[in-house]
Amino acid sequence: MYTYEELLEKFSLSLEKEKYSGKPAELYEPISYMMELGGKRLRPVLLLMACDAFGGNIEEAMPAALAVEMFHNFTLVHDDIMDGANLRRGKDTIWNIWGEDTAILVGDTMFAMSIEYLLKTNHARVNEMLATFLKGAKEVCEGQQLDMNFEEADNTTIPDYLGMIRLKTAVLLANSLKLGAIIANAKKEDIENIFEFGINIGLSFQLKDDLLDVYGSVNKFGKMPGGDILSDKKTFLLLKTLTIGEEADKKTIESYIGEGKEDPEQKIMDITAIYSKLNIDKITVTEMERHFERAEYHIGLVSLPDDKKAELISLAQKMMYRDQ
Amino acid sequence: MYTYEELLEKFSLSLEKEKYSGKPAELYEPISYMMELGGKRLRPVLLLMACDAFGGNIEEAMPAALAVEMFHNFTLVHDDIMDGANLRRGKDTIWNIWGEDTAILVGDTMFAMSIEYLLKTNHARVNEMLATFLKGAKEVCEGQQLDMNFEEADNTTIPDYLGMIRLKTAVLLANSLKLGAIIANAKKEDIENIFEFGINIGLSFQLKDDLLDVYGSVNKFGKMPGGDILSDKKTFLLLKTLTIGEEADKKTIESYIGEGKEDPEQKIMDITAIYSKLNIDKITVTEMERHFERAEYHIGLVSLPDDKKAELISLAQKMMYRDQ
Repeated sequence: MYTYEELLEKFSLSLEKEKYSGKPAELYEPISYMMELGGKRLRPVLLLMACDAFGGNIEEAMPAALAVEMFHNFTLVHDDIMDGANLRRGKDTIWNIWGEDTAILVGDTMFAMSIEYLLKTNHARVNEMLATFLKGAKEVCEGQQLDMNFEEADNTTIPDYLGMIRLKTAVLLANSLKLGAIIANAKKEDIENIFEFGINIGLSFQLKDDLLDVYGSVNKFGKMPGGDILSDKKTFLLLKTLTIGEEADKKTIESYIGEGKEDPEQKIMDITAIYSKLNIDKITVTEMERHFERAEYHIGLVSLPDDKKAELISLAQKMMYRDQ
Repeated sequence: MYTYEELLEKFSLSLEKEKYSGKPAELYEPISYMMELGGKRLRPVLLLMACDAFGGNIEEAMPAALAVEMFHNFTLVHDDIMDGANLRRGKDTIWNIWGEDTAILVGDTMFAMSIEYLLKTNHARVNEMLATFLKGAKEVCEGQQLDMNFEEADNTTIPDYLGMIRLKTAVLLANSLKLGAIIANAKKEDIENIFEFGINIGLSFQLKDDLLDVYGSVNKFGKMPGGDILSDKKTFLLLKTLTIGEEADKKTIESYIGEGKEDPEQKIMDITAIYSKLNIDKITVTEMERHFERAEYHIGLVSLPDDKKAELISLAQKMMYRDQ
């Protein structure tokens, strides 16, 4: 069975061969730019790894791997417009270079291309794959809309939040595994369990993201910690604090909502101090581990030899215990 | 064979039964709103009519008809953001009510749903249908990008323009006919000719749109003529004037580009006067008829009895000789 590094290498080689040189250039150059920005390529590697684990042919799975990576990048292009994000992976975002109108079209085109990739799989179960992919696509949109709703709401609960990140982040990771398993013609129960494994590692992955945003070091692109705090994002850390914090802590946090722009470092320091006092970092790790244990439970039910499961669990651990 | 009116009635009944009541409501309510705004429903009717003409079952074609209508409406939602259009069919646009971010997501979700409809066809040739649909989706994006490019360019030619409206407008009309023909299992040459028929009626349809924007009466939603003139849109009428007009005409038009906001009625009057002096209206009708004749040529090659062709030609004539 291939390791993460080997599959990443194989995927990267396949992606390099893809040329997005359609016309007009104003539409396709941004697609090339986006696909060459890099990133962890987690979704295609999860897809290839699941396919490999179930004895499938990873070359047969390559178009589907390209599909999930293209789809993920489409969502980033549109998300960056909505978030007004100037930088992604240390480089200018599509809308920031080519304008919002082109960025909308670039995303739309990438969505179409992602489904074209999936069709190229030419697998007997392509309809099932498409249905999975499209349901997941709607769920990502639903998750993003919920995330935007939460910005306005003042009664978001932790279960609401977990439901949102399930849709926005975890479903695509889980579907990547599911698609790989379908391509390898895994049996129904195994597909269901690998999907649930994916959902749970996706949740712990996003919780780690929230944690790194506060407690991480400056990342390799120079991104500073505290971005979520400055933008008043309702992360697990914030919601937990509002649940277990004392009245004074809640008041401090609430007084900062929409404020603190004149002294952002003070805002980050004050809120981080509350988090630390309440052990929010450890509580978040406990929550991550809770989902990770569920992930282990579901992979335990899959009818695969232990050494194949080990590679999937090892990747899940890398996703959870990463520094960046 | 069913008439346009009968097929419109059948499609409208099917559409009414569709409920877009997913969650969160902030995402799905705008989809209901958009799908209930009305419109000519040309694309689904063309699809059903082609299916009917080739002896197919129109109930079998209904999900594909819903797919092309949903897709068309997705493109309108995103186009309205790009155009900053406040009104569509006399009602507020999605971005105008729910904001740009939600409008982006609404469009993305509708795109996913349109492909789900196509999958529901469950036809033996669904892969061919999907490939047609996705190629067409990319072409619509390419056409929209070209349209935006032309806004900035000062050397757009009439062939450039025709190439743009082919992608932006004609391809989806042509693909609607093509999909209907595929569902009815029409033979390859017939599918190719019905597609070319669609391309050419699509071109004459868009040319009529350009013409109505200048010479039409106030439409039923209160939309005034002259919108394209005010927004300096490089329509066939404008490009033709720049080709055959005298130096003084060209100078007048060029002096108005980006100007005339303080007295929009004067701008419309002055430019319309130039069009009329140069007989641009008649020249546009001649161009429309040129494409209509090509459409007739292609439908002539289709192996269908004359009475079935007559219904398709009659619909094409309605599209070309409409008042609104």
